[in-house]
Amino acid sequence: MKALLIVAHGSRRPASNDEVQALCERLQKEKTAEEFALIRAGFLDLAEPSIPEGVAQCIQLGAGEVVVLPYFLSAGRHVSEDIPAEVEKARMSHPHVEIYLAPYLGSSPGIGGLLLALAEGCGKDDGSSG
Amino acid sequence: MKALLIVAHGSRRPASNDEVQALCERLQKEKTAEEFALIRAGFLDLAEPSIPEGVAQCIQLGAGEVVVLPYFLSAGRHVSEDIPAEVEKARMSHPHVEIYLAPYLGSSPGIGGLLLALAEGCGKDDGSSG
Repeated sequence: MKALLIVAHGSRRPASNDEVQALCERLQKEKTAEEFALIRAGFLDLAEPSIPEGVAQCIQLGAGEVVVLPYFLSAGRHVSEDIPAEVEKARMSHPHVEIYLAPYLGSSPGIGGLLLALAEGCGKDDGSSG
Repeated sequence: MKALLIVAHGSRRPASNDEVQALCERLQKEKTAEEFALIRAGFLDLAEPSIPEGVAQCIQLGAGEVVVLPYFLSAGRHVSEDIPAEVEKARMSHPHVEIYLAPYLGSSPGIGGLLLALAEGCGKDDGSSG
């Protein structure tokens, strides 16, 4: 069984962490992700579970493979160093499980399309100009 | 003429700001955004142009409408308070121009699909397990 751990930075503001949890729950419920029987949230800092904790939870629930995906927009130190280091810790703790690191969200070629979809139609009789 | 100003947080790390600039240049070149003749980057903090500067540049280049879109994943204080305050400043400076605030990137219903597309196939003979 394959699990997906979507890793956000984590915030002192609980609503921001809840947003990531809700996204994972929605993806899990929609069952569009045939490859992943389990979709969970993890956090680099300031919220729980941490990346090693999140990976461990997936394994406890039966995952034999875990994909860790950084929910980040830019390839800064968190994406290039901190998250890979946490993934490496998880690999050391679970040598029998395959733990992969997916590309970070901001690297997706589809981001531009989402931005245009959000922007198009703004100002067309929607009163959003305040 | 309608312009789109994609607003990121801004980083002390130039490569992160460059990533946003490159995204805007790519969208501008692809010409998939028929509604927007001009697509520019702006920054809330730590990089230039600021939101009011970015809006002013769009207007100087001929925009009669500007859509400001927050390139943010969570609806924190930056999205709910700081960016709207900067947009309001820009409106005060340019009362003859319509300046709209689009929903933030993280609110897009398409984010989940991008995450799954990035995660699917990870670990299939790609050697990414390190």
